[in-house]
Amino acid sequence: MQMVDGRYSMDKKDVADVTQSAKQAGLKLGTSGTAAKDNALKLMAEGLMERKSFIFDANATDVSNAKKNGLHPSFIDRLTITEKVLKSMVDGITEVRALKDPVGEITRAWTRPNGLLVGRMRIPIGVILMIYESRPNVTADASALCVKAGNAVILKGGSEAIHSNKAIVDVLVSALKRADLPAGSIQFIDTPDKDVLYEFLKQDGRIDLVIPRGGEELIRAVAQHSRIPVLKHDKGICHVFVDAGADLDIAWKVCFNAKVQRPGVCNAMETLLVHKDTAKAFLPNMIDMYGKAGVEIRGCERTREIVEGIHAAQEQDWYTEYLDLILSVRVVDSLDQAIEHINHYSSHHTDSIITKDVNHSMKFLREVDSSTVLVNASTRFSDGFQLGLGAEIGISTSKLHAFGPMGLEELTAQKFVIMGNGQVRE
Amino acid sequence: MQMVDGRYSMDKKDVADVTQSAKQAGLKLGTSGTAAKDNALKLMAEGLMERKSFIFDANATDVSNAKKNGLHPSFIDRLTITEKVLKSMVDGITEVRALKDPVGEITRAWTRPNGLLVGRMRIPIGVILMIYESRPNVTADASALCVKAGNAVILKGGSEAIHSNKAIVDVLVSALKRADLPAGSIQFIDTPDKDVLYEFLKQDGRIDLVIPRGGEELIRAVAQHSRIPVLKHDKGICHVFVDAGADLDIAWKVCFNAKVQRPGVCNAMETLLVHKDTAKAFLPNMIDMYGKAGVEIRGCERTREIVEGIHAAQEQDWYTEYLDLILSVRVVDSLDQAIEHINHYSSHHTDSIITKDVNHSMKFLREVDSSTVLVNASTRFSDGFQLGLGAEIGISTSKLHAFGPMGLEELTAQKFVIMGNGQVRE
Repeated sequence: MQMVDGRYSMDKKDVADVTQSAKQAGLKLGTSGTAAKDNALKLMAEGLMERKSFIFDANATDVSNAKKNGLHPSFIDRLTITEKVLKSMVDGITEVRALKDPVGEITRAWTRPNGLLVGRMRIPIGVILMIYESRPNVTADASALCVKAGNAVILKGGSEAIHSNKAIVDVLVSALKRADLPAGSIQFIDTPDKDVLYEFLKQDGRIDLVIPRGGEELIRAVAQHSRIPVLKHDKGICHVFVDAGADLDIAWKVCFNAKVQRPGVCNAMETLLVHKDTAKAFLPNMIDMYGKAGVEIRGCERTREIVEGIHAAQEQDWYTEYLDLILSVRVVDSLDQAIEHINHYSSHHTDSIITKDVNHSMKFLREVDSSTVLVNASTRFSDGFQLGLGAEIGISTSKLHAFGPMGLEELTAQKFVIMGNGQVRE
Repeated sequence: MQMVDGRYSMDKKDVADVTQSAKQAGLKLGTSGTAAKDNALKLMAEGLMERKSFIFDANATDVSNAKKNGLHPSFIDRLTITEKVLKSMVDGITEVRALKDPVGEITRAWTRPNGLLVGRMRIPIGVILMIYESRPNVTADASALCVKAGNAVILKGGSEAIHSNKAIVDVLVSALKRADLPAGSIQFIDTPDKDVLYEFLKQDGRIDLVIPRGGEELIRAVAQHSRIPVLKHDKGICHVFVDAGADLDIAWKVCFNAKVQRPGVCNAMETLLVHKDTAKAFLPNMIDMYGKAGVEIRGCERTREIVEGIHAAQEQDWYTEYLDLILSVRVVDSLDQAIEHINHYSSHHTDSIITKDVNHSMKFLREVDSSTVLVNASTRFSDGFQLGLGAEIGISTSKLHAFGPMGLEELTAQKFVIMGNGQVRE
């Protein structure tokens, strides 16, 4: 890679070198013991603290460039590495280190009539290509998770964070070397040339998985050009359905939390569905609570009959991930209609029912076609840490390999291991 | 779809209709109970027996066309539906019916400190596109497995089997209707137009998984054009390594079985590796056994020193899946060199070690990067039925979602189901 105009320039040969090196590193890292991997993680955390002025300086260059280029303050906020951000990166690595090593676990074993003992063993996936935008903390988080699960990782971060990412990766790779693990286990790439990125996406012999994290357009472009399996972290159009006879105190509390606690994230509620028999008792107070929190309501006809002065929801609203203090509200006739609405409009991310009826809760859990389905709890729990996975590399919205929040185990595959004593096929 | 020159003609509108119908059917089938699905499978098996002359007639047309077109006898053999083939299709459906319904199973559950009960529930994948060549039995096998796991299936079989496939699907769809399950759950497509097939491969909103079964070229084309996750059933370059001090009786028996019992399949051995300390005791008798069975040997230098009159193996041989009575043989210095050879040349399918040393067996199981790794047993056991999965829809050679033989469970995904009593995020 060569620097050109402050960015790297890569060609096909570089793609071959990087992927070949990652593949070799992955084979070595994948069979390294837990102690060696944990030692590398310890050195990574220490290294980030020891060399923080190096990282702050690199980050200052990115932040100054971003300001010069007139980027949005919220963008600059995500780009900036403060003492607190650095501390959370270090803590994240330390937490990953404390997690159980998934590699080598026999998840199940059974004996065949011919005496063969058949087991399934967790193994690393191999080489993972992470494509993400300009949050330098992802560089440390993703690297730590990949190393712990024995995977080599190729990092393609946003170009606006290039100096920060380079500095962080420099620290992480030093730690790998000191722990006697292959330096190719964590590699950072950057290229302004889309064709080079697409060349990476053709390396299905050397890269095993692509994880794009970012906007819809990025994810669509990656899925379109990739010959490698892609785990999509797509948008979240999340619903809460308040059933007839629901506990209204729970409904108010959960619906408020699901929308207001952090509206800008994918597991926040975007559409509220209310059973017609409970709408009159539930909606006025709920909408009043939302009004006080600055939430704009876009309601269906029946919602607007119950509470005056509400914007009318358009068809497009039911498909929209606002990521903002805006909420679509629809009154439905039945549980069936609620499920039908969700399966039609949702993004298969996270949906919740508030109900006292056990049969309704079971029906909702079974029939809602989403990665995370809840009863009497906030959609905001759809998160690897909250669900007890100990970490999160993303939330998969397609069903293959992983569906929903992905932790360390989702960064592994399973192979068959078989012990015999001379068995042959007849 | 319209018939043109004995084949269907499809356009973009047909693609939309088929995939939309499959998606709707999948949602309904996916939440249908075990009894309804098993009833449909029973009616399918009965229907195939009752309407066998209809199926034989349709098949006769395909066979006659194939003969007219001068296709290879082995091709015509795979295309022909005899009484025995029909019986095995019926038995296959009956066996799938007897398997445990995977849908709805809670594979694990745990409680969070805040009282949330978190579980993982098996669900159908949704809509599966099967692309395969001219074996009409796959039409019945794949349909039965997909229906049992609650998935809608779109079948794209080889054009030479079109009349047979149409007849079989006609019987299967009648059974679905009589069982009150959606007819769109099993759909058959055919098109001579590659662009139409590629249009299907773009429907990532309506198709969840593509399974291509066939030659390398087919699999490569599908992987290249698909925006939908693909489970590849690629070639098998399988190895057996005979370790120093191995039990020679077991080694001779297993190595003979792995090569000779059915050489034309993907889990047959293609390369034999022998430790240098056991080569002289093992190879002469082994190669004599192979000679009597008509196996051609292509050996490395050291092999050719031990046994005279053997062809020299070329570099390309180590990469070759012969699917025939041909075997590459290499003498290696150590277990490490054997593992290195396998991880370099194998297709990550199936590899076996013959050893008495428990540490060597553990090292081989951990470090060989293949979907199925065996100790003291034939590679021919890498098969869904042999491993006790009860069925097999294919053997995945890439690590995502499934690695190795895939049964009914591999046709499911898992979602998070969460029970709370009013929990919100702080």
